[in-house]
Amino acid sequence: MQTQNRTRMKTFQIHKPDEAIRPLLIDKINNLTKPKGSLGRLEELALQVGLIQQSLEPELRNPQNIIFAADHGIVDEGVSFSPKEVTWQQISNFLRGGAGVNFFCRQHGFELKIVDAGVDYDFPAGKGIIDFKVRKGTRNFLYEAAMTREEADLCIERGAEVVRLCHSEGCNVISFGEMGIGNTSPSSMWMSCLTGIPLEQCVGAGSGLSSEGVQRKYSVLKQSLERYTGNGAAEDVMCYFGGLEMVMAVGAMLQAAELNMVILVDGFIMTNCMLMASKFYPAVLNYAIFGHQGDETGHKLLLNAMNVNPLINMGLRLGEGTGAICAYPLIDSAVRMINEMDNFAHAAVTKYFE
Amino acid sequence: MQTQNRTRMKTFQIHKPDEAIRPLLIDKINNLTKPKGSLGRLEELALQVGLIQQSLEPELRNPQNIIFAADHGIVDEGVSFSPKEVTWQQISNFLRGGAGVNFFCRQHGFELKIVDAGVDYDFPAGKGIIDFKVRKGTRNFLYEAAMTREEADLCIERGAEVVRLCHSEGCNVISFGEMGIGNTSPSSMWMSCLTGIPLEQCVGAGSGLSSEGVQRKYSVLKQSLERYTGNGAAEDVMCYFGGLEMVMAVGAMLQAAELNMVILVDGFIMTNCMLMASKFYPAVLNYAIFGHQGDETGHKLLLNAMNVNPLINMGLRLGEGTGAICAYPLIDSAVRMINEMDNFAHAAVTKYFE
Repeated sequence: MQTQNRTRMKTFQIHKPDEAIRPLLIDKINNLTKPKGSLGRLEELALQVGLIQQSLEPELRNPQNIIFAADHGIVDEGVSFSPKEVTWQQISNFLRGGAGVNFFCRQHGFELKIVDAGVDYDFPAGKGIIDFKVRKGTRNFLYEAAMTREEADLCIERGAEVVRLCHSEGCNVISFGEMGIGNTSPSSMWMSCLTGIPLEQCVGAGSGLSSEGVQRKYSVLKQSLERYTGNGAAEDVMCYFGGLEMVMAVGAMLQAAELNMVILVDGFIMTNCMLMASKFYPAVLNYAIFGHQGDETGHKLLLNAMNVNPLINMGLRLGEGTGAICAYPLIDSAVRMINEMDNFAHAAVTKYFE
Repeated sequence: MQTQNRTRMKTFQIHKPDEAIRPLLIDKINNLTKPKGSLGRLEELALQVGLIQQSLEPELRNPQNIIFAADHGIVDEGVSFSPKEVTWQQISNFLRGGAGVNFFCRQHGFELKIVDAGVDYDFPAGKGIIDFKVRKGTRNFLYEAAMTREEADLCIERGAEVVRLCHSEGCNVISFGEMGIGNTSPSSMWMSCLTGIPLEQCVGAGSGLSSEGVQRKYSVLKQSLERYTGNGAAEDVMCYFGGLEMVMAVGAMLQAAELNMVILVDGFIMTNCMLMASKFYPAVLNYAIFGHQGDETGHKLLLNAMNVNPLINMGLRLGEGTGAICAYPLIDSAVRMINEMDNFAHAAVTKYFE
């Protein structure tokens, strides 16, 4: 007798890092040979990474960038400037090494993993894509839920599985990106439903819509929201509007936090995934470093609503994890600061602050 | 018979880069596999470096960071929180590799050169310091000109000489930093005299003054300005208030521009040096990339007055070139972008913009 035949969302053990080490970290940072506080946000980053790793000598090992890719049913409504086939074409470009994310990975020593969460295309085998396809794109949320609970649960589990793989390879700092034509639309839906910010302020140009295009996109999303009859809970919003690659990223972020990894958060879409993850496990935010404030309308509002301040703003709006990886050297600088700078006593420099 | 016994300031040949290559650079950048403009400021940087090098395949070679160091007579008036001996002590720390600038240089592959422009200390020989000491610190500008025209001319020449050395070593991208307790004071004087911004808005906490300390500093600088009877021309302001390390940096910047090098501009003090350099040769600004907006009061105002927008703002206020080097990976990213990204035609990706 089966009263409950749906699967259940995987649970995670995510704790706020133990605070006992905080004063020791602060003392170490304050005794480095520089005016107190003069390395600004690098000092905050060193503290955060030290807390995550519970170490006075934190280190960043084997960084990886994971791109979750999928297609979106809502693209049928003309919400995206780019045609759907760009999703799989760009993945081929990633594999050849010619995309934006590739040079960033090479520059900063990131390994790149590509995960097919739900691309509407049959990739030939043996291309190096992790095949975690749940279905060939989501359903069209103008008419129905984008995915079932079971599909979402599978996404969460598979996202977590990718991260366990990375962790087993010695990685302790991970960034997540996405490739999925149309995925600013589900992101805007998540943002509006979870923050209460009016939908209009959550909708932007994506990969290059004109202002008329943005109006059309807004009108489709507004209708979708009006027709939505779910309970508004995070899990329901996640399934109804979500992208498969986005839900997989949520699972991946939660798993990374459970494993005490440093999580680099990319642009608008990945920030929405971190928001969603934090609705299930608020402590996940302790592990998150927001890399870049993107140009997509709504990203700044979303970051403000989450009360976080990304490291840089270079006007990127490419996705793929590029905004997160772009900021990585700053985190590396912070870790080098706490490990490599001399202290006043040892360096015999007059301690020039109180 | 000698009617004019003073030396004359070295002249430089500094030209705005030829614009003919601009449309070719823009075309190349727009055909990389990304939505048009989606790499934001990286695209602007690639364009700037391409113009400076007159190349569609720009490259960054043998980056170097030069620290000019000197002491300041005005420190006798209590304008600095840190005691004067910190200047030479920190230089010793640079040489041992334990300072902030050292880990940044190691991280980003910068060679570090330390130039004694006028430190009030006798360094033992053979320590690796370039001995270009003009005098042991400036005179106190509350009472007299900080340096003579001849001393300034010598600084300009020696700064230029250091850069010619770097260039001969294959360096084509260079950042300049400073070490000189008290040097926010001359910087504030330059800024106010050259921009017309009221002195009060140009004076800040330096390495850690309290608000009473800032008031005292302001009062000393205000008196100095009231007593100044020079003609207000850039060269006069440079000599009357300047630091020896600052004037050397001006000469270095001008020489770097003449040699078509990319110049990374650090924080408040180096921005003032770039401002001074631009008063002599406005075209020098075409070669400048402003790395970091520092926390020192006045830096933001100064950058606004110069109509430039630094790449990052991490709240650094350490000097030494750290703000410039910290931003270097972004310039490296820009150069990698234009060289390593595939274009739409070759990658067989549908060109998803007009």
